Formats: sequence, C-alpha cells, structure tokens
Amino acid sequence: MNQASTDRTRIRRVADNARYDTATLHAILDDAYLCHIAFSDGKGAHCIPTACWRTGEHLYIHGSNGSRMVKHLLENACCVTITHLDGLVLARSAFNHSMNYRSAMVYGRFEKVEGDAARDALEAFMEKLAPGRQAEIRPGSDKEYAATTVLRVSLAEAACKVRAGGPEDDAADLDWPVWAGVLPWARRPLAPQPDPGCTIAMPAYVDSWQADIAL
Amino acid sequence: MNQASTDRTRIRRVADNARYDTATLHAILDDAYLCHIAFSDGKGAHCIPTACWRTGEHLYIHGSNGSRMVKHLLENACCVTITHLDGLVLARSAFNHSMNYRSAMVYGRFEKVEGDAARDALEAFMEKLAPGRQAEIRPGSDKEYAATTVLRVSLAEAACKVRAGGPEDDAADLDWPVWAGVLPWARRPLAPQPDPGCTIAMPAYVDSWQADIAL
Repeated sequence: MNQASTDRTRIRRVADNARYDTATLHAILDDAYLCHIAFSDGKGAHCIPTACWRTGEHLYIHGSNGSRMVKHLLENACCVTITHLDGLVLARSAFNHSMNYRSAMVYGRFEKVEGDAARDALEAFMEKLAPGRQAEIRPGSDKEYAATTVLRVSLAEAACKVRAGGPEDDAADLDWPVWAGVLPWARRPLAPQPDPGCTIAMPAYVDSWQADIAL
Repeated sequence: MNQASTDRTRIRRVADNARYDTATLHAILDDAYLCHIAFSDGKGAHCIPTACWRTGEHLYIHGSNGSRMVKHLLENACCVTITHLDGLVLARSAFNHSMNYRSAMVYGRFEKVEGDAARDALEAFMEKLAPGRQAEIRPGSDKEYAATTVLRVSLAEAACKVRAGGPEDDAADLDWPVWAGVLPWARRPLAPQPDPGCTIAMPAYVDSWQADIAL
C-alpha cells in the first residue's frame, strides 16, 4: 500500500517522499518516545508534546485525569506528529539544501482505554522504556491508576514522509567548488546517572543502555 | 521574568517546571533545527514539522510560495512547539516515572519577511547550519528567492517547560529494591557523508562536525 488513505493524508509537497506503508509508519512511531499533538479550542491552536507508544494499530498516550488536553482530546479530533531529524543535507546551491528526516502524521480522535486494558497499556509503555522493569518496581496503586487516563488513537488515517540520502543538485551546479554531502545525527545514549540514594546494582537494561539501544 | 505573558501561556500541569525567561527560551530554540506547527483549517487540526531558526525576538521558517501551510499561516494564528527529549527518568514506583525534556511553545501569527530582509534571514539560517558556508555555495538566484517565502513569528507570547534531574519518588518508596536514576540521551553528530561525486576537501565546519557541535 503506497497510497494515502484519505484526502487529508495525501502528501502534496515533494510527494516523492511520501510513504503510506505500515512498516514505515510503525518504524517511525517505535523509534519515538514523544509526539506533538495539534488541536484547537476556544483559545486557538495548541501544539503539545507528550510521551507516546504504539501497540498494534494504535498510538497510545497518557495523562492526568484533570489535564485540559486529555479532556479535549476525548471529545475532538486532532493530529499527532512524530519527526526524527537525521541530518543536514549540504548541496552546492543554497536553494537545494535540505534535511534528512522521518516523520509520521496521524489524524483521528483519541478514545479512552479503560480498566485492565489501561493497565496493560501502561505496562507495555514501561516495557518499551525499560524491558523487564515492570516486575521490579513498586507497581501502580488503585489510586494511581484511577488518577491516570490512558488514550489511544487509531493509525487508520496516517501518512509518513521520509527524506534520506545525499544532496540533489541541479546539473549545472555539480562543478561548483564546494563540499557537498550530509552531516548526519542520531540520538545516542549517554552514561546512566544513578539516583544519589540508590545502592541497587544496575539491571541489564541499564547496564546495556549505551550498548544496544535501538539507534 | 518568570511569569506567563498571557493566560494562554500560563502552565498549569507541573507548574514548577514552567520557565518564562528569555534565556531559557532562546537556548531551547537555538538548539533546534525543526519545530512543529499546529494550525486548523476546514479539514481539521494539523501538526506540521518544518525547519526553523531564531534571530533576535523572532522565530523564522521558510517554505515554497505554493505551500498550503505558508498561505494559511500568513492569515491565521498558530502555535509553534519545539521539544528536546533529554532522557528517561526511572523512579522506584511506576507512577513516578518521567522524562527529562526542554520544550518551548510560541503562540502568534506569522508575518511575511520581504526583500532584502528575506535574503538576510535565509543567510542567517545557512550560518546556523554551517558557519561560513554561505560564501562558498552557489548563491540563490532571483528566481529561487522569488519562489521562497520567509515567515517569522514574534516570541512575545511564549512559554517553556523544563524537567531535569533524577526521579522524585514518594518517601515510602525510597527503600524499594530497584535501581533508580536517569537514562540520558543526546543528539550526536555522526561521520560526515561526502556526496559520491564530491572531490572538494572538507571545510572546517565539516571537518569539526563531530568535534564541536553544540550538544
């Protein structure tokens, strides 16, 4: 499937970079720990960053029951976007400079995840953050679970845009005497910082934090 | 100044993390190469990633004249958000897990930057991407400049939210036998990738890419 599911998700600008397949969408979402959510209310448009995770064909978020955003999202449509910046693309001409990136947009309305499904979803989030940690921590109390709203949005109306590779210069510029190429970036894990009061040995997911996190 | 400029920018959730000072705002914006912009039209709310840079008390973006977003932003208010994810905060309880981040939100309406000011703005963007490169590249032609719209939004209505440091556990959880601390991340430069056809020596800003980029 490399076609937009709806008119709203059909990419017009640099349409060659559009991706509508599930594998690309899942990979972009799974590499993310936060998304930006756009919605509008009586005070205008808002763009709010929040933690997210994917299970199956839904993207999940959570928040405090009292949050204005949580209340609003349960009653209104929104757009959720995730973008990874992979590098600067330095072309021979000013005009052809670009950036390499992977972005995903999801349109839809969040629904509330209730009861055991909400607990399962939060445990899936913990498993993404730190595999195996759920069994080690002080689990959520009924009161804590009751104070937290878990929401999910379907991935049915989504689109991705991906740019990768080197500069695309005009043929006439190829002999211009300037270095051209890509300056790439990646999110890299730094050394774990134990809490000052902590005397517990590092579990495997901390010990290997800098070794095998997905980059 | 550590007070919100407007009701819309007053942070309610975890208000202790709110920052309204200019130094924090500038630092968050200057560490970013892209922002997410929320706006609404007849098709709903949209959350669009785009490249950005700051000069003085404005945040700049650019786009093709024909872009729907560019047209819309010149006529409607929006919200621009930048978020840096700095790490995962692993607490003793599930509930107190968190993330370290720096985010900035700007509310306003973009205005068009015209003529020489638009060229100056695009050159400032290049200077941010690769200091000194503007003098080396094939400069923009009149036609290329004419096809590009530069926009800027005032930073007058902005707010930041910053979380840093270790977990904040409930006192009753401090003896729970689990590792606690922060798993930090940072954007790191990877090795430059010269364009296959490029025989020009690396300029200083490429040669030092992995050495002295602001992290």
